[in-house]
Amino acid sequence: MALGQLIIASGEASSDMRYAAGFSTPDDFIWFAAGPCRGAVMSPLEYDRACRSAAPGVKVFTEKEWGGPDRKAVICAIAQKYGVSGFSVPEDFPLLWADRLRGAGLVIRPEKAPFFPERGTKSETEIGMIVSALRQAEAGCRRAFAVLRETEIARDRTLLWNGTPLTSEILRFEIDSTMMKGGMSASGTICAGGVQGSQPHNQGSGVLRADAPVVMDIFPRSAATGYWGDLTRTVVRGTPPDIVKKAYDAVLDARETAKKRICAGIPGSEIHRIAADVLEKHNFHTGRGETGDYGFFHGLGHGVGLDIHEGPRLSPRGTEPLQPGAVVTVEPGLYYPEWGGIRLEDMVYLDPSGSVRTLTEIEDFLVL
Amino acid sequence: MALGQLIIASGEASSDMRYAAGFSTPDDFIWFAAGPCRGAVMSPLEYDRACRSAAPGVKVFTEKEWGGPDRKAVICAIAQKYGVSGFSVPEDFPLLWADRLRGAGLVIRPEKAPFFPERGTKSETEIGMIVSALRQAEAGCRRAFAVLRETEIARDRTLLWNGTPLTSEILRFEIDSTMMKGGMSASGTICAGGVQGSQPHNQGSGVLRADAPVVMDIFPRSAATGYWGDLTRTVVRGTPPDIVKKAYDAVLDARETAKKRICAGIPGSEIHRIAADVLEKHNFHTGRGETGDYGFFHGLGHGVGLDIHEGPRLSPRGTEPLQPGAVVTVEPGLYYPEWGGIRLEDMVYLDPSGSVRTLTEIEDFLVL
Repeated sequence: MALGQLIIASGEASSDMRYAAGFSTPDDFIWFAAGPCRGAVMSPLEYDRACRSAAPGVKVFTEKEWGGPDRKAVICAIAQKYGVSGFSVPEDFPLLWADRLRGAGLVIRPEKAPFFPERGTKSETEIGMIVSALRQAEAGCRRAFAVLRETEIARDRTLLWNGTPLTSEILRFEIDSTMMKGGMSASGTICAGGVQGSQPHNQGSGVLRADAPVVMDIFPRSAATGYWGDLTRTVVRGTPPDIVKKAYDAVLDARETAKKRICAGIPGSEIHRIAADVLEKHNFHTGRGETGDYGFFHGLGHGVGLDIHEGPRLSPRGTEPLQPGAVVTVEPGLYYPEWGGIRLEDMVYLDPSGSVRTLTEIEDFLVL
Repeated sequence: MALGQLIIASGEASSDMRYAAGFSTPDDFIWFAAGPCRGAVMSPLEYDRACRSAAPGVKVFTEKEWGGPDRKAVICAIAQKYGVSGFSVPEDFPLLWADRLRGAGLVIRPEKAPFFPERGTKSETEIGMIVSALRQAEAGCRRAFAVLRETEIARDRTLLWNGTPLTSEILRFEIDSTMMKGGMSASGTICAGGVQGSQPHNQGSGVLRADAPVVMDIFPRSAATGYWGDLTRTVVRGTPPDIVKKAYDAVLDARETAKKRICAGIPGSEIHRIAADVLEKHNFHTGRGETGDYGFFHGLGHGVGLDIHEGPRLSPRGTEPLQPGAVVTVEPGLYYPEWGGIRLEDMVYLDPSGSVRTLTEIEDFLVL
């Protein structure tokens, strides 16, 4: 007998669920595809929301239609009705449910991600939703540029905004609240100044200073659509040291060179290598010192869609050829504990027609 | 041989992971307890963050110390070194990894939640973090009160703020940005006016009107600690209809009566029943009509901590006796498609000393 497909998750926790069902809920529910039917089985609390916003072709059921809230019984009834011996499930399918369903005689087969490979091929509608989130990231970034331009530089080189020291926290709030007005949710926005920027995941805290790079990595998610945008710019208020200017030029060169080489059919690992080579050519080396990694020690980019990090990878592990319809970030960076970091991130779309479109519109510059 | 404990998850997706490891990451990593050792195995990108913020007693390892990034090999090596035959894992442990590890001969046993029952017993430190998130929810709510008080009522009874129609979206932004300034992340804040409020999970959209209840359910999470606060108030700008005033009084009575009956040893289902009885006594009935459920058709409350919804339940399914140290919401509501909804939510702490503390401080009133 054939297998169906099954997801048990909340739309908030699982983008596969959001993709399949077409809506998001705070609580787990059942989505399945079996025989001719794709369906979602909802609790009374979520039934109306599901009916309003289910994806085309997804039939919304109440639990009662399958005999009540007992999930195992519901899933067994679905399998029986549509004549499937079990289900393939996402790799992160909850183990307890897998064991219970296997105990009831169903085949439960986890599929290595992606569960829906078609999520890697973005439609024009999806591109529209991604670009709209990206435009909000750009609006947030422009707000940060404006705030930084309004700062005065104190004698001790701290930045003063409206007379008080400008902190990473304040700058982050200005970015995030700008994007929230545009319907985005934002968390984790990075505003890391000086040496804090030498740790790629450091969100940044405390007073920002002139003459040092501020890494701003901005990734809002549309509350309405669930799609993400992703953008990084690095700027200096005041006068950057020579090493920072050189690193900036190297990273920009790496990003642009890599973008030009992206096309369907080339593995992401190859694009990563190209960017890494450019940075080496500029004499910025990568390695591990006593205080940690330095140079360029993360992947060049990743797919973006309903997940902020999804396939394909532009990294040494991205050995699959890139597919038409992919959206990826290109975000080389250089990180040195002595002075901080530079990262510049654009988003790129491999148009199925064969062209490669940069989705990001905001300008590049170092000094403001 | 004994079993260890194992989690594979990101701190962002799994509160068990955040609780066990003491920090949060965007990407999955391994946490384990085996023999005398509790450890986290980190990628190079997250190693430094982990060292800075690991929970007391958690040893931070690099992948290389266990032979490299091959997760199966790492986990097998851990089991061998500490002499365990396998691991108990959370119920939502990813199935693909479970099957791989079982294939390698390890016992992988999913535990029905809670994986860490001790999460249900909050320490004073945790209470401090929950209260601090709750205070931010209250700050957001006070901001909403202030905005609503500043509105003028147009001839058609829409609310005007600064001369333009006040929408759910604008009010939500005012609440969320207030909390963001206080270090919270917020998403999903409910500002549902009029009949939208008759659906407990409707976030609300469009122009708000006078004389109709506005349900505001506010649940920020501290970006720093990961703990949540949870608060609901319902208010009317203008003149509420009699039915709304009566429903408000009934819900307030249900909440206060239920709070008084909470104590260690009583099952959550019993507290739920008490609240439901009060609402019935006020002649507000529950049932299912043609347009959906009406009356009081959700659980009375839930535990709050690193998850916004965690045990114990105050609902018909909460049959376990409440334990000292629990933090729960008490949030009765009444919902009628004809006029909307009323929900009033406080947070309560079952102090291990035996007293029951209301953590919520913000006042109750209907009309502003």
